[in-house]
Amino acid sequence: MTEPTKINGPLGIIAGRGPLPCVLAEAAEALQIPVHIVAIRGEAHEEIERYPHTWIKWGEIGKLFAALEKSGCTDLVIIGGVNRPDFDNVRVDFGAIKTLPFLLSLAKGGDDHVLSRVVGFFEEKGYRVHGAGVVAPELIAGEGKLSTRAPSAGDMTDIAIGLKVVRALGRLDVGQAAVVAGGHVLAVEAAEGTDAMLLRCAELRKAGRARGRRGILVKAPKPGQEERIDMPTIGPDTMRHAAAAGLDGVAIAAGRVLMAERAATIAAANANKLFLIGERWDDADE
Amino acid sequence: MTEPTKINGPLGIIAGRGPLPCVLAEAAEALQIPVHIVAIRGEAHEEIERYPHTWIKWGEIGKLFAALEKSGCTDLVIIGGVNRPDFDNVRVDFGAIKTLPFLLSLAKGGDDHVLSRVVGFFEEKGYRVHGAGVVAPELIAGEGKLSTRAPSAGDMTDIAIGLKVVRALGRLDVGQAAVVAGGHVLAVEAAEGTDAMLLRCAELRKAGRARGRRGILVKAPKPGQEERIDMPTIGPDTMRHAAAAGLDGVAIAAGRVLMAERAATIAAANANKLFLIGERWDDADE
Repeated sequence: MTEPTKINGPLGIIAGRGPLPCVLAEAAEALQIPVHIVAIRGEAHEEIERYPHTWIKWGEIGKLFAALEKSGCTDLVIIGGVNRPDFDNVRVDFGAIKTLPFLLSLAKGGDDHVLSRVVGFFEEKGYRVHGAGVVAPELIAGEGKLSTRAPSAGDMTDIAIGLKVVRALGRLDVGQAAVVAGGHVLAVEAAEGTDAMLLRCAELRKAGRARGRRGILVKAPKPGQEERIDMPTIGPDTMRHAAAAGLDGVAIAAGRVLMAERAATIAAANANKLFLIGERWDDADE
Repeated sequence: MTEPTKINGPLGIIAGRGPLPCVLAEAAEALQIPVHIVAIRGEAHEEIERYPHTWIKWGEIGKLFAALEKSGCTDLVIIGGVNRPDFDNVRVDFGAIKTLPFLLSLAKGGDDHVLSRVVGFFEEKGYRVHGAGVVAPELIAGEGKLSTRAPSAGDMTDIAIGLKVVRALGRLDVGQAAVVAGGHVLAVEAAEGTDAMLLRCAELRKAGRARGRRGILVKAPKPGQEERIDMPTIGPDTMRHAAAAGLDGVAIAAGRVLMAERAATIAAANANKLFLIGERWDDADE
């Protein structure tokens, strides 16, 4: 869980995809913390232009640091998914050339190693990198039932299996999610992402491969995952995709998963008659 | 590895999908062992009609045992993949009604539990269930390089990661395969099967999610997997799909993976410039 660190001066938000950068900017301003959004072109939503901002392209590292310096941000949140950069189309500015060995090293290794190094990269330059919880703790789901519907005893058995699978995979720096139905693991997430995995489950079901079993989605962090910049995230779309896959509900690791739009996510769970529950999660558990 | 048990009298082959039932019948006849194929309608290939045979539908358990008894088979091989039966369209004969509690129990639990119980079911009735190796040991790949191409040092690193992932998953009764590229786990197999997983990797690659990295497929059994009736299997199509996914090659657990068509599989690996290698595998390894 993110520490309630005090932010000194304006908050720099390095913005990828989705609604989270704006949710965070709004939360910061509500706390009287000014923001500057550095938005990655092709990733961030145009809505970020409602706040003080600078657009950069992948690779414009010099421009990134110039924007942070000019706006006086030494506290950062890096938020919103990004696609793994397409290294053929990166625009390399002078700042990037200086950091080229670092950038090239990012092209190798599991996600986790990449993201830890990104945090380290900013910290070496004197920035403090925070998780989203620093200004918007309500984005992180706690323990217990969030939806109207509750999981059945059978669902709880499937949840326990799913948590075990995600834990075992997480230790190997793979994925964050699994789908379990009637004691049988239907799908495991790796590079394709949760939405693509749920789509696959919908197809397996259509093909009669999951007939008579409904099932659950489990989402949890990898042990040691760099949660300041890569918390597992769910949103209303996760609920819609889970419903399309014929699932009964969704279980997330309490305190360790971001809800991109808390109210809309819970509403989508209820509208689709899914349960949504925060399960106790400790990285040290077996 | 399958024990070279002696077959007494004719060999009963319960036939699912693919070429293996015929390959096995041919191998048995070459050893002067007569066969009777009990073929599952909608699963087995018509080619099995070249051998003494009986067609049954899912659920015709009475007809199955009548055919085995009439042909004098007490030694069985159960071979060729089957789709998880669609329990709405099973034809239930009198033999099935007697075993209904058993059949219903198969609808629950991971693949492994199901298949172990199927073996137990035949054994309780006095049949001996063998692996394919009993008459066709050449179908099981040994240790070492089978293709012309050899894996690179980078491939070997990816293979080691893939073996670890498959081992961890296997302990949880999930899947038998994973794809690793440049140290990054691209895909993990669960209910969708190896071909669907390779197709997904081809799509990830097209979407630029695996650019500049090629990668490898690893296939190995789950620890304790009922290898007499559910050995992991590769064939020429596996090689073609691996090539379509842009992979460098395929590593399989030596002595533990069936090659549906040995010569054609190796030829397909070479035609697609893939390596194909048997890696030492011990269920007890960490």
